[in-house]
Amino acid sequence: MKKKLLYAGSFDPVTNGHLDMITRACALCDDMVIGVVKNHSKKSRYSFDDRVSMIKLATVHLEHIEIDSFQGLLADYVKDRGINAVLRGLRANADFEYELQMAQMNARLFEGKIETVFLMTNPEYSFVSSSIIHEVFSLGGDVSGLVPDRVLEYMKSLR
Amino acid sequence: MKKKLLYAGSFDPVTNGHLDMITRACALCDDMVIGVVKNHSKKSRYSFDDRVSMIKLATVHLEHIEIDSFQGLLADYVKDRGINAVLRGLRANADFEYELQMAQMNARLFEGKIETVFLMTNPEYSFVSSSIIHEVFSLGGDVSGLVPDRVLEYMKSLR
Amino acid sequence: MKKKLLYAGSFDPVTNGHLDMITRACALCDDMVIGVVKNHSKKSRYSFDDRVSMIKLATVHLEHIEIDSFQGLLADYVKDRGINAVLRGLRANADFEYELQMAQMNARLFEGKIETVFLMTNPEYSFVSSSIIHEVFSLGGDVSGLVPDRVLEYMKSLR
Amino acid sequence: MKKKLLYAGSFDPVTNGHLDMITRACALCDDMVIGVVKNHSKKSRYSFDDRVSMIKLATVHLEHIEIDSFQGLLADYVKDRGINAVLRGLRANADFEYELQMAQMNARLFEGKIETVFLMTNPEYSFVSSSIIHEVFSLGGDVSGLVPDRVLEYMKSLR
Amino acid sequence: MKKKLLYAGSFDPVTNGHLDMITRACALCDDMVIGVVKNHSKKSRYSFDDRVSMIKLATVHLEHIEIDSFQGLLADYVKDRGINAVLRGLRANADFEYELQMAQMNARLFEGKIETVFLMTNPEYSFVSSSIIHEVFSLGGDVSGLVPDRVLEYMKSLR
Amino acid sequence: MKKKLLYAGSFDPVTNGHLDMITRACALCDDMVIGVVKNHSKKSRYSFDDRVSMIKLATVHLEHIEIDSFQGLLADYVKDRGINAVLRGLRANADFEYELQMAQMNARLFEGKIETVFLMTNPEYSFVSSSIIHEVFSLGGDVSGLVPDRVLEYMKSLR
Repeated sequence: MKKKLLYAGSFDPVTNGHLDMITRACALCDDMVIGVVKNHSKKSRYSFDDRVSMIKLATVHLEHIEIDSFQGLLADYVKDRGINAVLRGLRANADFEYELQMAQMNARLFEGKIETVFLMTNPEYSFVSSSIIHEVFSLGGDVSGLVPDRVLEYMKSLR
Repeated sequence: MKKKLLYAGSFDPVTNGHLDMITRACALCDDMVIGVVKNHSKKSRYSFDDRVSMIKLATVHLEHIEIDSFQGLLADYVKDRGINAVLRGLRANADFEYELQMAQMNARLFEGKIETVFLMTNPEYSFVSSSIIHEVFSLGGDVSGLVPDRVLEYMKSLR
Repeated sequence: MKKKLLYAGSFDPVTNGHLDMITRACALCDDMVIGVVKNHSKKSRYSFDDRVSMIKLATVHLEHIEIDSFQGLLADYVKDRGINAVLRGLRANADFEYELQMAQMNARLFEGKIETVFLMTNPEYSFVSSSIIHEVFSLGGDVSGLVPDRVLEYMKSLR
Repeated sequence: MKKKLLYAGSFDPVTNGHLDMITRACALCDDMVIGVVKNHSKKSRYSFDDRVSMIKLATVHLEHIEIDSFQGLLADYVKDRGINAVLRGLRANADFEYELQMAQMNARLFEGKIETVFLMTNPEYSFVSSSIIHEVFSLGGDVSGLVPDRVLEYMKSLR
Repeated sequence: MKKKLLYAGSFDPVTNGHLDMITRACALCDDMVIGVVKNHSKKSRYSFDDRVSMIKLATVHLEHIEIDSFQGLLADYVKDRGINAVLRGLRANADFEYELQMAQMNARLFEGKIETVFLMTNPEYSFVSSSIIHEVFSLGGDVSGLVPDRVLEYMKSLR
Repeated sequence: MKKKLLYAGSFDPVTNGHLDMITRACALCDDMVIGVVKNHSKKSRYSFDDRVSMIKLATVHLEHIEIDSFQGLLADYVKDRGINAVLRGLRANADFEYELQMAQMNARLFEGKIETVFLMTNPEYSFVSSSIIHEVFSLGGDVSGLVPDRVLEYMKSLR
């Protein structure tokens, strides 16, 4: 049986923390679907199309990856797509409590057929989040090394 | 490629929290090795042989599981045994910080070839640990439903 | 002396976590006032009247409970109503820090005459909050068992 | 119905944090039993008799308080003594996680008939614990204001 | 070499917690710059001019303090102003995680030339934040003792 | 006025996390005293003399550093030595709560004359502690890059 993993998020923008997670998880599954959230309740910083473009640029060198859009209930999406497990990254305690709550709710909605699996962040990226990257970048700070080079170029081209 | 997962611990004694973790992780891998720690620095409550007997009783109904003893450096063991990933359970923030530290240290020792993957505890067992089970049981309290029935019988037979 | 307990919240909507808290606290006091917040700073998902209707449906089987509306400063309300203690539920660390801050501030405003008492959540409902219930329900997910049946019917009738 | 509250601990030694908790909880119940733990697994700093003497000195001015010894399973003791609720204090996150675990385990053992209720520490005593008091006192540091005056005299008399 | 410390914030309004931090930090440096944030992303409760006036009232008795406005990237500001270290206060775990993230990001942007140093809050003010002060004050509650007297008068004059 | 900073610990053994803290703090003070704890309540892994030798090896390239032994009450030591501030490192929430407690207790004992100042760990060393280093090293694992090279040689020479 082939194992298909989902990594969903708004990727607003994708960071080297996300890319590290994707790269490491690739080795644990047969195929990975990256689900870019379309109807994220928080207004997104970048448009859906830009967020998809950036994650394509970030993962162009990786195989067995499909980039898809995702909206609505995660539980419906994973059933429709034949996903075996959902991947989440953990950086800090604040993440942990939110992720615990979501994983326990999803365990009910998944009816025990799909698992949420977690990887711990690489310490190098423990302080990296899309929001801090965006805040620093928008104030003119240097975020090279924290987002993939091609993504940084894309971000600069939109300014 | 077959995926082999390691779940290591002292299982002193094995609880329904452990068993829930094992059962759910079975669906994510091809084979699972349960590594019962032999040289645990904390003195164990039950002998190594009793701990192995209990985990065998707990998992007798499951397939693709091998129970092995484990001592020394985890990084050496996983390389020797051809493990692809190490499984850990997460219950609470206190777990999280310790597990984050161990996973980041092991990421170095594993040289990026083996991952530590985490599952969140089932809320039903969020307060269950080997030490609280042992404490309540040794004071004569009822722990049925928190350890597998066959394990509870075994624990009673040792009194 | 009769002990009167206040359980205040926005109940937007009331969940089985709230109901568990109310049921358990009933055994600790003589009377309980459920104070439905009227001027909650966050915009509420359901109207004040709907939130009151739902909590009435949820507690119709319980005695010694009065449902009241509440706005303004908690310290003023509890003095006006002759409350002896304020009840709060604790689920997770994130709750804890906020609740510690509020309880310490209120201890000043209560002038040592009224206490804030806490009960720990039932593990079965540890991941249940009004916001996650609303999010899943509004996306069409199944929340039965997490809100009282009569409340779920009410929620469906408003769709 | 009269409400009887239990406050159990090793009180090794009793601090002003404990006394603040006892004083505040007195107003919430009809009677309070202070259960001094006899068989505490950690070796105690002061003998059982000294710990009882110190808590008697600390609470001599309070009414409706009974000081008792306690050993074995808490659930057995509270049933035997007709306790309605168990009181615990919360200072910090580290307390919270341990207390959540114990309260959820005890909820099972109490069979829903007895509750664990929590009060938040007074910020003035948020950093006060028996162990830090003992450590500072034994190194000759000044702990006045952090333990009741009569308890401090008693501690000095034992040097 | 003279050590110049920056304490930046929105001070919306300044509290006795802030003032305690400023007073204690004065003893650790030669000069202190208080940087009142001008373009804070959250809409401020008080106007920039009112926030500056209040912090001037709060610190009028202190020497070697300069009150300045601050906007844009912190890293640029500290280089421009010849700051040696940035001061931050820590109250609770929730603070800690956010501060850890910001300090690690700023360490990159500061290129190792400027440090972020932390002081722990005085327990007396552990529950005091600008937002809780504002919430209680705006509902008519008594916040005396939690903000400097002159600041409280100023706040009342604006009602 | 010259600022003298104390960095006290058991350094059992000193790690690159400690060294990073020392190097960064040097830039914030005029002189630094490294106080190697002599009477540490936990039995130390390395002898006092070995711990001193290792920290000397680790800091041989740094100026304005004095290595001293320290026992008894910190508050007495800092007064005797004319220390202006005590330095502590923060890695994780678990550190934070312990450090908050110690800093608040010491603030009393220091009578407001000496401060405890904190630096956040470099993310590169966030998972590094003396105990995990010792555990991995004693099981034959590779800890190069996590302790200074000269310290690692010293540790190997003692095997």
